[in-house]
Amino acid sequence: MFKTLSAKAAAQLDQELMSTGAFSIDQLMELAGLAVAKAIYNQYPPTKSTNKVLVLVGPGNNGGDGLVCARHLKLWRNYEPILYYPKRPKKDLYINLTTQLSQLGVSLVDTLEEVKQLLHDLSVSVIVDSLFGFSFRPPIRAPYDDLITYLSENSKSIAPIVSVDIPSGWDVDEGPIDQDIDATMLVSLTAPKPCAEKFSKPGKVHYLGGRFINDTIAAKYGIADLIRLYKNDELIVKL
Amino acid sequence: MFKTLSAKAAAQLDQELMSTGAFSIDQLMELAGLAVAKAIYNQYPPTKSTNKVLVLVGPGNNGGDGLVCARHLKLWRNYEPILYYPKRPKKDLYINLTTQLSQLGVSLVDTLEEVKQLLHDLSVSVIVDSLFGFSFRPPIRAPYDDLITYLSENSKSIAPIVSVDIPSGWDVDEGPIDQDIDATMLVSLTAPKPCAEKFSKPGKVHYLGGRFINDTIAAKYGIADLIRLYKNDELIVKL
Repeated sequence: MFKTLSAKAAAQLDQELMSTGAFSIDQLMELAGLAVAKAIYNQYPPTKSTNKVLVLVGPGNNGGDGLVCARHLKLWRNYEPILYYPKRPKKDLYINLTTQLSQLGVSLVDTLEEVKQLLHDLSVSVIVDSLFGFSFRPPIRAPYDDLITYLSENSKSIAPIVSVDIPSGWDVDEGPIDQDIDATMLVSLTAPKPCAEKFSKPGKVHYLGGRFINDTIAAKYGIADLIRLYKNDELIVKL
Repeated sequence: MFKTLSAKAAAQLDQELMSTGAFSIDQLMELAGLAVAKAIYNQYPPTKSTNKVLVLVGPGNNGGDGLVCARHLKLWRNYEPILYYPKRPKKDLYINLTTQLSQLGVSLVDTLEEVKQLLHDLSVSVIVDSLFGFSFRPPIRAPYDDLITYLSENSKSIAPIVSVDIPSGWDVDEGPIDQDIDATMLVSLTAPKPCAEKFSKPGKVHYLGGRFINDTIAAKYGIADLIRLYKNDELIVKL
């Protein structure tokens, strides 16, 4: 079994990367979102000229990773990302990531009804869950509560869900709670969080991405073996 | 023959990406530097446990691309980037990119004598020329003049040189002038500049990277066919 990083250790590593490591959030988010897009391409390559990808974007950094992922998918062609981004923080970073997408002609749906309609039509090939990340604490508030309940209740009849770092609604350390997302694929960033151990079931796919630490930092957090799984110049690895 | 972007058009596109496009320089530099590193990996994969890569870093954005490239090479293991960065602008972006490298244990050489010694020892596998980009205007000032003269006079006996966007010393639109770098490989960013036409000779290798525009923007600049050369989710393409 792979080594995991607790919610606390993950927050500490993130903090270290941005203080001592001198990384900007723009850089880390760019590399994280790119890794998620690469994993999606690897697992669900476009099969027709337009493969709709519904990207569910949360209010924080996990949402930012989803926005970056959507941009790369769009640039790689044959994917048609559609955003559901109900709460948008008034920070330059998120405003700019959203503008980049609108400049590329990526469309948005505004209501949960539209999301349900899209999924009901079966026109969506992949759903990206970039709602909440490792700093999420319950309870899930509106409008995400209804969305997650809908996804949870309809998981068998809708497109596969790819969760960014954490299946939204899961406790980062403990795993599934009452109301959560039944993801098919998980892309852990930097390192899997403890909840990822509950994700290892037949039919589930698990990738690692976010290759921005070296062996020394990895060793400090006990994840040196994990980082060594990356091959050559690959930005992702299937676990 | 591929379509090129004049110095003026390239500056205009860069400006458009950062204004209307809402890209931050951190993002563009991260993607550009990553593309250069990917091209180096593709062309000169590590052949032993330590492949020294001498990265010549200029004072502007071209230098920043080199710094990002050095970081990715270092993280991919088996490359040992060494920086020569004689003039460092006091901007947060460059200071942070340099700190990231020192945190990863990347070493620096301080003098041109040390650069010459390294190259003379034949211990360097690849030289990255990230001195000047498309906004360069002659003359070449100290200490770059002596460095470029040395590289130019010794091009047959030293490691292959990979130039980032423009072989340093070349006129962006016209190509080679008196004092310039005889690169073996060129990585054009976004699109080749007119001088790249002078680069197409036997034994020369040309890559394109920096995949951050879509077909619509590309069409506006007359480079739609070029952008369509990228395959799948690749970040680079060999021209």
